[in-house]
Amino acid sequence: MKKIVFIRHGQSKFNLENRFTGWLDVDLTDEGYNQAREAGKILSKHGLTFDIGYTSVLKRAIRTLWIILHEMDLMWIPLYKTWRLNERHYGDLQGKSKADITTKYGEKQVHEWRRSAHVRPPKLDESTFEALVQDPKYQNMDKTLLPYTENLIDTEKRVLQYWHHEIVPQLNHNKHIIVAAHGNTIRALVQYLDKKTDDEIANFNIPNTVPFVYELDENLIPLRSYYLE
Amino acid sequence: MKKIVFIRHGQSKFNLENRFTGWLDVDLTDEGYNQAREAGKILSKHGLTFDIGYTSVLKRAIRTLWIILHEMDLMWIPLYKTWRLNERHYGDLQGKSKADITTKYGEKQVHEWRRSAHVRPPKLDESTFEALVQDPKYQNMDKTLLPYTENLIDTEKRVLQYWHHEIVPQLNHNKHIIVAAHGNTIRALVQYLDKKTDDEIANFNIPNTVPFVYELDENLIPLRSYYLE
Repeated sequence: MKKIVFIRHGQSKFNLENRFTGWLDVDLTDEGYNQAREAGKILSKHGLTFDIGYTSVLKRAIRTLWIILHEMDLMWIPLYKTWRLNERHYGDLQGKSKADITTKYGEKQVHEWRRSAHVRPPKLDESTFEALVQDPKYQNMDKTLLPYTENLIDTEKRVLQYWHHEIVPQLNHNKHIIVAAHGNTIRALVQYLDKKTDDEIANFNIPNTVPFVYELDENLIPLRSYYLE
Repeated sequence: MKKIVFIRHGQSKFNLENRFTGWLDVDLTDEGYNQAREAGKILSKHGLTFDIGYTSVLKRAIRTLWIILHEMDLMWIPLYKTWRLNERHYGDLQGKSKADITTKYGEKQVHEWRRSAHVRPPKLDESTFEALVQDPKYQNMDKTLLPYTENLIDTEKRVLQYWHHEIVPQLNHNKHIIVAAHGNTIRALVQYLDKKTDDEIANFNIPNTVPFVYELDENLIPLRSYYLE
């Protein structure tokens, strides 16, 4: 039986301020640090261990993973960081207060931007997009892949590309894997693994730092999935 | 011009207790954390940046690098961890107090064990070696390479193997590199790069967490090297 653990980063400064974050690189709050420590303790308590870690290039996810690996005495395992596991790109909403955007556009529109698989938030303006192109984090990738905005399907496409090319081969070698990522990247993987409909996944929430375990058969078909507490 | 920065980990618990450490996986002291933070600030102040980091599988070096990358806002760069950058293996001296060993064997013998390129400390006993073989950190390597003890030449051999196969190709791609490692692994690289004699290297000390910069020409011949303060 193969096993993989997904974990959403701890509380970030923008979670606390109730702002859209997406690819903005905000750090954890003190509470987020504590949540990550707790997650590491829970994983150890259940006797889990890992051979490889995957995360995004955003520090809220990297730091969550670093803290977990510190708690588990696994700092030495290889970690791979990829833009493909970044949170969904929220376009021009990034950095803006959810309350302000709701006042301006109405709840229905905001809910669609947040949860519809097909609707994309408004695009980044050109100068903000240009800053993204210049960001050293994205220097070594094909720049034509950088998004102005994304819907969940766009996010899924890039996440699943990484899943199939990088993570699946390691699962096939029976490696124990932890993926520390973001609400929508984990949602994308859950939709794929559990064949959930767009409506089902829209209402599926991933809580911060609660380890979400998948047990998979030889063909990587889920046998069961559960939260660790 | 190519540039690479070597940095020895911050003060460890065994540095403080004056014990032989080698491959024992002891963490930094609070002072070691502070030294690493200071190193990150110094590197930033001098405008350095990095594309790739290399370190050992020992947490005092990994943590030093993590803290530096946090300070430099470079948590997202790829890091590679390898046993080949581990501290020199000190054999049966590992974990023992330097004072006790000096009382038992005399200063001259201890100095030879510590600094001679050719003399090896006494070997690990079989049960301690067996524990090393079982350590998950070393599960994916050729077990016949695991040492019972090492002299500096043994250490150099494995470090230079990694240097030539992994680090040199990245220098040739003009990547900016940081190597966070240990006294004897950095000493091995310095001896190789600066063609120092065994006597010269025996008296060459690497202070904790002071960034040591090498500027190299196209053929990786050192143009100059200096500490950053």
